[in-house]
Amino acid sequence: MTKTNLPREVLVRLPKYLRHLNEMMLQEKCKVSSGELAKKMDITSSQVRRDFGQLNITGHNGFGYLVKDAHRRISEEVGLHHTQKAIVVGAGNIGQVLTRHRIFQDRGFELTGIYDSQPERIGTIIGEHTVQPLKDLALLPEEGRPDIALLTTSSSAAEETAAYLSGLGIPGILNFCYVDLALENTLVENVHIDDGMMILSYRLHHQ
Amino acid sequence: MTKTNLPREVLVRLPKYLRHLNEMMLQEKCKVSSGELAKKMDITSSQVRRDFGQLNITGHNGFGYLVKDAHRRISEEVGLHHTQKAIVVGAGNIGQVLTRHRIFQDRGFELTGIYDSQPERIGTIIGEHTVQPLKDLALLPEEGRPDIALLTTSSSAAEETAAYLSGLGIPGILNFCYVDLALENTLVENVHIDDGMMILSYRLHHQ
Repeated sequence: MTKTNLPREVLVRLPKYLRHLNEMMLQEKCKVSSGELAKKMDITSSQVRRDFGQLNITGHNGFGYLVKDAHRRISEEVGLHHTQKAIVVGAGNIGQVLTRHRIFQDRGFELTGIYDSQPERIGTIIGEHTVQPLKDLALLPEEGRPDIALLTTSSSAAEETAAYLSGLGIPGILNFCYVDLALENTLVENVHIDDGMMILSYRLHHQ
Repeated sequence: MTKTNLPREVLVRLPKYLRHLNEMMLQEKCKVSSGELAKKMDITSSQVRRDFGQLNITGHNGFGYLVKDAHRRISEEVGLHHTQKAIVVGAGNIGQVLTRHRIFQDRGFELTGIYDSQPERIGTIIGEHTVQPLKDLALLPEEGRPDIALLTTSSSAAEETAAYLSGLGIPGILNFCYVDLALENTLVENVHIDDGMMILSYRLHHQ
């Protein structure tokens, strides 16, 4: 595991690089220039070269980068070469979609369970999973503990639930609730599906 | 409508400012300092002051900003004071969640329909909407045309469908498919729910 800590502006580009490199692999494209990638990424080619330099991805003058190598290197950097255990907390609409989504298998994550605290949801079946009581998370043996919890409860329950998950030692939370969470001992990434909608709205009003 | 074009790094912070200001309004908090906001936003207070300066939100020394004013000003800037028509294209899992989501009403958007091209989906009822044939979009009268299409088809159908929507003159697409789209005459914002998962994975592996 490398210990470089990429600046966030570079980090947020990694999933996008992976998507484009993945598409190229599907098209059986072997090599790619910084210029081609820059166009797809909507950044400059020197920015691509700087990013790849930081990731120790080496290119060759007049040849470019090997697609497969760059994809493997970025996947490693992101940690996708290890299988990571994930759970969904909250069995509402978004929780159900995430439970059924290919997001897990396709990106090296293993969905190990879906949890809720509402009695009427417990025991219902979603995809291949049965909704379990949230309090049972505390009973999981060490080796069954998830690396990441996808939090999809109501916004009003988000903070309390996040604190509970953090207290159990779950290292990462992906937060889909309409509040920005920050915790002391657990890393949080906030995913707000309406951010894109607002940004698009702004751009439509200012074009 | 102001015609300032905010740099993207500022633009992406607007939804986050709105969320925090919204929470403060719910807590009946009247004023807020740049320092308080900075802490919540995880940026510096001088950055908050610069952002608010660009948005023509004026504060007062030793008093701070009026929460309601700042919220109204940013909402206007994002274009949320007009009702905008939105449609969902693709009646799969994600399309269904978006159709049922409060995202529309709560943020000044009106969901006017859900469309799909798969015969078995057409006519099914999702929330208050009946899935309509995608080709019927071309028959809508001028005044019924949507401002934004939320694209949730399969990735393989995404490009073709996006080109069709753009050809109809739909000005904005919010793309949920696992491909990055770019179109000539239509603005696109790509929403990738797995980006957050990868960024979290990176941070867990490098902490």
